[in-house]
Amino acid sequence: MANPIQFYFDFASPYGYMAATQISRLVAKHGRGVEWKPFLLGVVFKVTGGLPLPNAPLKGEYSRRDMERSARLYGIPFKVPSKFPIASQAPARTVYWLEPQGSARQEEAVLALYRAYMVDDRDISSPEVTADVAASIGLDRQKVLEVIADPVMKERLKTETETAIQRGVCGSPYMIVDGEPFWGADRVEHVDKWLATGGW
Amino acid sequence: MANPIQFYFDFASPYGYMAATQISRLVAKHGRGVEWKPFLLGVVFKVTGGLPLPNAPLKGEYSRRDMERSARLYGIPFKVPSKFPIASQAPARTVYWLEPQGSARQEEAVLALYRAYMVDDRDISSPEVTADVAASIGLDRQKVLEVIADPVMKERLKTETETAIQRGVCGSPYMIVDGEPFWGADRVEHVDKWLATGGW
Repeated sequence: MANPIQFYFDFASPYGYMAATQISRLVAKHGRGVEWKPFLLGVVFKVTGGLPLPNAPLKGEYSRRDMERSARLYGIPFKVPSKFPIASQAPARTVYWLEPQGSARQEEAVLALYRAYMVDDRDISSPEVTADVAASIGLDRQKVLEVIADPVMKERLKTETETAIQRGVCGSPYMIVDGEPFWGADRVEHVDKWLATGGW
Repeated sequence: MANPIQFYFDFASPYGYMAATQISRLVAKHGRGVEWKPFLLGVVFKVTGGLPLPNAPLKGEYSRRDMERSARLYGIPFKVPSKFPIASQAPARTVYWLEPQGSARQEEAVLALYRAYMVDDRDISSPEVTADVAASIGLDRQKVLEVIADPVMKERLKTETETAIQRGVCGSPYMIVDGEPFWGADRVEHVDKWLATGGW
């Protein structure tokens, strides 16, 4: 199988959610898999000088509207969470812990956690809530709580975020296809064309 | 004829250039015209806390790559200008001065000025260069120099930029369709769908 694509995302990112619902099916058409790479967008913002969208004057109001409109266009449920953005360590560590169980199992967790936050307005920054969501897809609730507090998983997320910055990840979602970077849910279609044509 | 769409853009914005090459043909399919609305993105950045893309860490490098790749996808010529960004008062005032001559004449000027900067690497922040480009499409070179220095046109651009901010314009290009805002060249396709469907 050809190289998987790296899918970088933050669980607090609505555009990350939208792309996450599309990416796996899209790249599978081209015989590709997905490496799920949650990272901490707040750390990236310290480098880029970015602001969380809801806090940015003018952009905040626009983005809210664009998010809702984009979700309707994708045909996926979405509700701007009442607490937004949130810290995303708990779900991110859970996803890295699942890595040995394979990309499909990670995707199931990614989508369940995103849905909890972006549709059902559940605050997945809470380890308890993340563990509840994990349990709903058959994971061991107590084990997930341990994973979230595990220094090894903390270090893993920290390292992945640093690697993301070294690779140029400047926002969420950020997709890397054979070294070629694509930023933003609106670039999912470019990824599709890139894989179909071998690049242009 | 139904309401024209408002096309807000800064002459220093590569994504503004890309959208400008598409927008008129696209909205004409739906029986719509274009109101050309150059504005000063630097003034908006003071409100949003934004940075010119080339100056933003991580985003700068990515954007350069994305701009070149996007231009190839659109099939239009593009070269990152050696001086980037630039102040865009001279071309912007010229476009407002042309308003009484109609949208098609303004579009001709917009595309000629963008091409000079984004393809031929000519510094249109210079009134002399803008006047040369204007002369190349049959405008009176001396008159254009007077227009650029005219307090009335200075005030017009200032007022238009303030109005843009009041309308929520947070970047370039920014398109308003019957009150519905769309930000970014990647939203041109959404504008197309919006006009085709009446919104969703």
